[in-house]
Amino acid sequence: MELSNRVNAMGHSPIRRFNKYAIEAEANGKKVYHLNIGQPDVETPACFMEAVKDFDKKVVAYSESGGETVLQDAICRYFERYDIHYDRSEILVTNGGSEALNMVFTAVINPGEEAIIAEPFYTNYHTFITAAGGRVVPVTTKAEDGYDFAKRDLIEAAITPNTKCICCINPGNPTGRVLTIDDMKLIGEIAKEHDLWIIADEVYREFAYDDRKAVSFGMLDDLADRVIIVDSVSKRFSACGARVGCVASKNKELMDGLMKIAQGRLCCPTLDQIGAAALYNLDEAYYDEVKAEYESRRDVSYEELMKIPGVVCQKPGGAFYMMAKLPVDDVEKFLIFLLTEFEDNGETVMFAPAEGFYATEGLGNDEMRIAYVLNKDAMRRGVELIRLGLEAYNSK
Amino acid sequence: MELSNRVNAMGHSPIRRFNKYAIEAEANGKKVYHLNIGQPDVETPACFMEAVKDFDKKVVAYSESGGETVLQDAICRYFERYDIHYDRSEILVTNGGSEALNMVFTAVINPGEEAIIAEPFYTNYHTFITAAGGRVVPVTTKAEDGYDFAKRDLIEAAITPNTKCICCINPGNPTGRVLTIDDMKLIGEIAKEHDLWIIADEVYREFAYDDRKAVSFGMLDDLADRVIIVDSVSKRFSACGARVGCVASKNKELMDGLMKIAQGRLCCPTLDQIGAAALYNLDEAYYDEVKAEYESRRDVSYEELMKIPGVVCQKPGGAFYMMAKLPVDDVEKFLIFLLTEFEDNGETVMFAPAEGFYATEGLGNDEMRIAYVLNKDAMRRGVELIRLGLEAYNSK
Repeated sequence: MELSNRVNAMGHSPIRRFNKYAIEAEANGKKVYHLNIGQPDVETPACFMEAVKDFDKKVVAYSESGGETVLQDAICRYFERYDIHYDRSEILVTNGGSEALNMVFTAVINPGEEAIIAEPFYTNYHTFITAAGGRVVPVTTKAEDGYDFAKRDLIEAAITPNTKCICCINPGNPTGRVLTIDDMKLIGEIAKEHDLWIIADEVYREFAYDDRKAVSFGMLDDLADRVIIVDSVSKRFSACGARVGCVASKNKELMDGLMKIAQGRLCCPTLDQIGAAALYNLDEAYYDEVKAEYESRRDVSYEELMKIPGVVCQKPGGAFYMMAKLPVDDVEKFLIFLLTEFEDNGETVMFAPAEGFYATEGLGNDEMRIAYVLNKDAMRRGVELIRLGLEAYNSK
Repeated sequence: MELSNRVNAMGHSPIRRFNKYAIEAEANGKKVYHLNIGQPDVETPACFMEAVKDFDKKVVAYSESGGETVLQDAICRYFERYDIHYDRSEILVTNGGSEALNMVFTAVINPGEEAIIAEPFYTNYHTFITAAGGRVVPVTTKAEDGYDFAKRDLIEAAITPNTKCICCINPGNPTGRVLTIDDMKLIGEIAKEHDLWIIADEVYREFAYDDRKAVSFGMLDDLADRVIIVDSVSKRFSACGARVGCVASKNKELMDGLMKIAQGRLCCPTLDQIGAAALYNLDEAYYDEVKAEYESRRDVSYEELMKIPGVVCQKPGGAFYMMAKLPVDDVEKFLIFLLTEFEDNGETVMFAPAEGFYATEGLGNDEMRIAYVLNKDAMRRGVELIRLGLEAYNSK
């Protein structure tokens, strides 16, 4: 009565691994600023709950495996803003971006095949690629280069006969790197030369700051058959708990393969899809407002971070994360110190240790990721607590 | 730019495969009685939408990976009715019973290992077991024996050194077979002797008719470490579109392994969990009422089915499906005939061909499954249409 080898080989989420210390700190009456997880305090637009409340059928019935048509249509209209033209059959609704990624790697990766991805990267890529029997091949990027990975020599050095796809999280989690259209064209050229899929995780699409343009791999028509877009309402509409995402692709074979997987789990929840359709119908003003809010949170977080002696950080161009090197040997130990020993006026702070964002052993030990998902005052205080904590830690 | 071998090897859902004919028939103005899918017309209890509408947080935030505590607690209280005592850590909330099954096989089955299951069985067992690299080993059961599989010789003949688990869908889909406590004890004994997991899919638990007792593998304390219960609100509360299920087990290692998988997909939808908690809080009267309704639907359907010359059918004891042998060589051809050529007063009917419910090649060609999920008049008319269709088909 053993478990499977694959589940024994899995680890607990590195982002959620330290929760027990935070729960204990909170039980002891400490206030913890949660900069560790991408859970924004931005309000979910009211239209979500309004649409849900308007549901008046007597039976909460199965939805179609590919998604509610009202949601598929809303997603198609949303992409029209980017001059990208999908029809319903090219949109598969999923249980969040997580299921979208899981399905895509299940459909694309054979055991032993490789997926190229710039590190640091969102940890669950590791989970889903290894679950499919594949191998993560990292392209290491650095703060000093602004985490740029759109370089021919860097990417080509990672390609082997087993390479199956290039994964682009854009804007980047955890780096905040934003690709330009020219970056995307270069990646597209390489993908064409080596006949690779492009998995474009664009769940932070509109969160591109300092007059950077929100773009999509879907805009490049000559890549249409190889681009697989992963999307989600979680971040864009601050609706993480709705668990609504999608895969969008013009490759009919891929969409047919994904549909086979989707039929196995029958369908996504009906109510959340109806709410999500209302979110996708929001107009341009919503995006402008939210983007301005996150941009200002980034600015105060960065300003406050720069007050810490010895910190190394590049101001990110997008998404809502910031990577920073801290003047400690082991950020995990420092994090445990913050949650178990440190406090300032009864308050402390939590971040995500960066080690889990790297595939290369030994990288990230002195780095953290913070998510600037709290309001400006909270972000200022949260980063201040990191500074005060470091002072206490290093003078121990 | 190929797809993975595993996705190429997958088939489209045999239950949903004929939908295109039904959609076309409906587009041509025919009324189709859908006896093919387990989507009841029974109203979802109003408390579900009431609880959802009461949600008043400003942010629809991530839930915990293991589930909302309000739902875990409601599920624990529900199991107390059966004198089964779980705590929160023994309940993992999933995206429907489907995700529960998928996670369980991921956690239990290594490539090459075998899962024993009585055939005919719910088709997605094949999907999930093969996705985990495992092999379905069927124990063939027959209408003539009431689809009984709780026999030592039958089960032991299927056990090999690679056997990892025995799967029991109880009450059975598609057979309607209901295990007694003694049946379960026998299966438990065999599982102990051969050190196997017992995967107990009990999503139809309360739907046991003719004074049969609703039971659970969770009631047998000496099996506690090897029993994995899969549950769902879909059928019990007619809330298929809520996509809320769970795994319940007292095996701590298993629950820890499942939690690792669960963290990869972050969490289940928040609103549906809140609604589901209200469903689990319904009192005994709800179960009595719904059971009586399905029992009377079964009786009408069976009565009507018995009017068809040459049909072979055992009156099922539970769930809401009925298997029947029809006097045709190929029920799939007959089904296509019903949807494309036949009509009676502008009406026709759809069932699920049984072939997809068998792992053994060649079985089920002359069998169908109907779901008695529609009201009595609709069931009567639906089965009548099968009779009239058969007359037309066999006189062609």
